[in-house]
Amino acid sequence: MTRFFVDAAQMQTDSIILEGQNAAHARVLRLKPGEQVLVCDGQGNECLCSVHAATNNALELDVLERRVSASEPKICASVYMALPKADKLEHVIQKATELGAAEIVTFPTARCVSRPDEKSLGKKLERWQKIAASAAEQSGRGRIPQVIVLPSYAAALERAAQAEKAIIFYENERATTLHQALTCSDYNTISLMSGPEGGLEETEIQQAQDAGLQVCTLGSRILRCETAPLCALSAVMYQSGEF
Amino acid sequence: MTRFFVDAAQMQTDSIILEGQNAAHARVLRLKPGEQVLVCDGQGNECLCSVHAATNNALELDVLERRVSASEPKICASVYMALPKADKLEHVIQKATELGAAEIVTFPTARCVSRPDEKSLGKKLERWQKIAASAAEQSGRGRIPQVIVLPSYAAALERAAQAEKAIIFYENERATTLHQALTCSDYNTISLMSGPEGGLEETEIQQAQDAGLQVCTLGSRILRCETAPLCALSAVMYQSGEF
Repeated sequence: MTRFFVDAAQMQTDSIILEGQNAAHARVLRLKPGEQVLVCDGQGNECLCSVHAATNNALELDVLERRVSASEPKICASVYMALPKADKLEHVIQKATELGAAEIVTFPTARCVSRPDEKSLGKKLERWQKIAASAAEQSGRGRIPQVIVLPSYAAALERAAQAEKAIIFYENERATTLHQALTCSDYNTISLMSGPEGGLEETEIQQAQDAGLQVCTLGSRILRCETAPLCALSAVMYQSGEF
Repeated sequence: MTRFFVDAAQMQTDSIILEGQNAAHARVLRLKPGEQVLVCDGQGNECLCSVHAATNNALELDVLERRVSASEPKICASVYMALPKADKLEHVIQKATELGAAEIVTFPTARCVSRPDEKSLGKKLERWQKIAASAAEQSGRGRIPQVIVLPSYAAALERAAQAEKAIIFYENERATTLHQALTCSDYNTISLMSGPEGGLEETEIQQAQDAGLQVCTLGSRILRCETAPLCALSAVMYQSGEF
């Protein structure tokens, strides 16, 4: 079913009018009176609606049912990815959104090559958030994951450690598997942190441990920086009973 | 450790000479006498070697130890992906190789938009195999996954069904989770099949069931055709104890 994201305030009334981009999208889809669509507030709530009237500039909808989005995962997973080069972060934002991430957090580490200045970062963040919104719409999410940029590795560690389970992946780790980390205790929130192209430094891993993160392996093959977070997120969703 | 892929025949002697592309790669890395490298036959066997001499056109190696590659997964997982548009298959070949796939098989289905003719398919296959080889090298695989093109959906089903476990993912499936399918019996070989951009048709799912494949869900979010196989492969590797 087609889904439209609107501001939460717009969802309060029994009839909803979609304008602007949403109306343009509805026009492309040639929606007809009587057809059903979903309107979501991007925060996990949705309205099942029936098309009342479709004009060139607006789509009038009657609310049939209000409910909590059924497509949101039970677990709240945050992906922490060190700033990569080029379009790799865009790729991870799109895929992590499909896979059910609650948020995607990026931050600099010692070996990060990409060091955007504040001005270009502002533009990028806007673009990243749009990618998340579009992927949420396409994959049928009820929530748009937030993309967050943190100024330092220390800030990322501090924030990541606030989850009930906080994991960092390191290619030199051999002992602790993700499976061990995921099955040793219960949790509703989880942080999954991984490094940039050049990997994390040993001192950074020490720092992460000091902050309370658990160091895990993702197996004996070396994953690219854009593969590791998505592999880990898939495993976390699988382990938590999503599929 | 740097790894070079050679023909199995080249690995029989106690001293190995790398030439051509391998020698060029060694030159870029400025390998020096005494440094250790791995030489692999791409079929799961490797030699730990020490650099004996490095010239402009050749790298002479002394074999220190012959062994079975330690980085190959225990499970033999085949990814069956319906021919997608553009560069999505290239993406899946690269990532599935990193994640430990034994082979990547592609084939047409009813809703496939991409229909390359035989001539362009030959060129593409060559390119796809190169992508697998390069990803195997970078990720430290001991085996280069084979990329296989099959002429029909029926041929794909027949081949996929030969694995000890054969699964097909369908977005309209709600009952059977991948977890249920993976934990109901033992297996050493597994086929993971998924559809193209437009999805699989209901009759195709019926055909797959008739061929012996189990229909599974990958959760309540709709995954893109290039996300589904990698999500499934990650979960299979996780479930089989790889990480």
